[in-house]
Amino acid sequence: MAKIPDATITRLVRYLRALERMEEAGAVRTSSEELARATGVTAFQVRKDLAYFGSYGTRGVGYTVPVLRRELRQILGLGRKWRLIIVGMGRLGQALADYPGLAEGYELVAGFDVDPGILGRRVGPVTVRPMEELEATVRDEHVDVALLAVPEGQAQGVAERLVRAGVRGLLNFAPVVLSLPEEVAVENVDFMAGLSRLGFFMLNPRWREEMMG
Amino acid sequence: MAKIPDATITRLVRYLRALERMEEAGAVRTSSEELARATGVTAFQVRKDLAYFGSYGTRGVGYTVPVLRRELRQILGLGRKWRLIIVGMGRLGQALADYPGLAEGYELVAGFDVDPGILGRRVGPVTVRPMEELEATVRDEHVDVALLAVPEGQAQGVAERLVRAGVRGLLNFAPVVLSLPEEVAVENVDFMAGLSRLGFFMLNPRWREEMMG
Repeated sequence: MAKIPDATITRLVRYLRALERMEEAGAVRTSSEELARATGVTAFQVRKDLAYFGSYGTRGVGYTVPVLRRELRQILGLGRKWRLIIVGMGRLGQALADYPGLAEGYELVAGFDVDPGILGRRVGPVTVRPMEELEATVRDEHVDVALLAVPEGQAQGVAERLVRAGVRGLLNFAPVVLSLPEEVAVENVDFMAGLSRLGFFMLNPRWREEMMG
Repeated sequence: MAKIPDATITRLVRYLRALERMEEAGAVRTSSEELARATGVTAFQVRKDLAYFGSYGTRGVGYTVPVLRRELRQILGLGRKWRLIIVGMGRLGQALADYPGLAEGYELVAGFDVDPGILGRRVGPVTVRPMEELEATVRDEHVDVALLAVPEGQAQGVAERLVRAGVRGLLNFAPVVLSLPEEVAVENVDFMAGLSRLGFFMLNPRWREEMMG
């Protein structure tokens, strides 16, 4: 199978969002040009990205919106409702629990924190449980994914507990590179890195045009 | 100048973090192998990434930790303290204001919100101001960058106000593709996209090994 750039997966998510808006607006057909405009890339890039996963378009006819949308949801694993927990229910964890889009594609099982002051509290769809219940919850409630919103210094230790308990994917908000077994999927949401990239592009505006993908 | 992959800039941030830890630990020299281990990439990738910006290493000797650290900070625009505001002081905005690393490299000027109930409130180093003061603050206090933590439906409108007022960079937390003049730097922090990528890798573990970059 061809190598797939990480950026392609990120763009698939954007194409999917654009398709959802089109479907809501009643559109049946779209084109790589229209998808490109809606997501800020080139039509060539759209066609190239979709080609990794098979040929969904017909030359001169384009794509069928609900078909492509369904295929992209399938590719991105959105066909099933992954079961999530949030570890670390400070302001960030609470913001995540309340996030409107989260409940749509995911089953939020519980939140966890060490702070006795917030245990038992209801935030969005979850109740805050003590860290002592972490392993039992992961096992008994078949948790697939953990959102890791604990302080930097605790991220590695908590991640190891989660993996031992059976979590298969981690969305890590702490600014650390987690060292975990290869079979565990990890995605980092690192806004300090985003700020550093901003600084780079603000100082080097000319380079932005020359960037790849 | 050679084209620089976006992922290279992201990795530079990780190399910088690793160098900071090494310097704290008293290390003077490092190697592409050591940087690779600390950041989860290959030594070849480290050398390739750094080569875009000139040759910092000496064959067989490696890199001088404080020199490479200083150069990376310079490249990433961390040599100067950018002036930031946070727009949208809900839970996410408040979590950002409180974020420990933020005050180190950036000057947090103010937060903004529409909710009269939190106006004037102090969160971390910032006070929440009304949206009516947005343009005057950006102009009078020379704001460089805005962290956009408003609801999805308001992101584009608020972003346009910020750009008209003179903001040069936007860190966007709303799950929308902002449509802005080319000279404005935009970075998206999109954790729902991170979750979708996780889903993809959990369904396709074999593909992860085959990914580029």
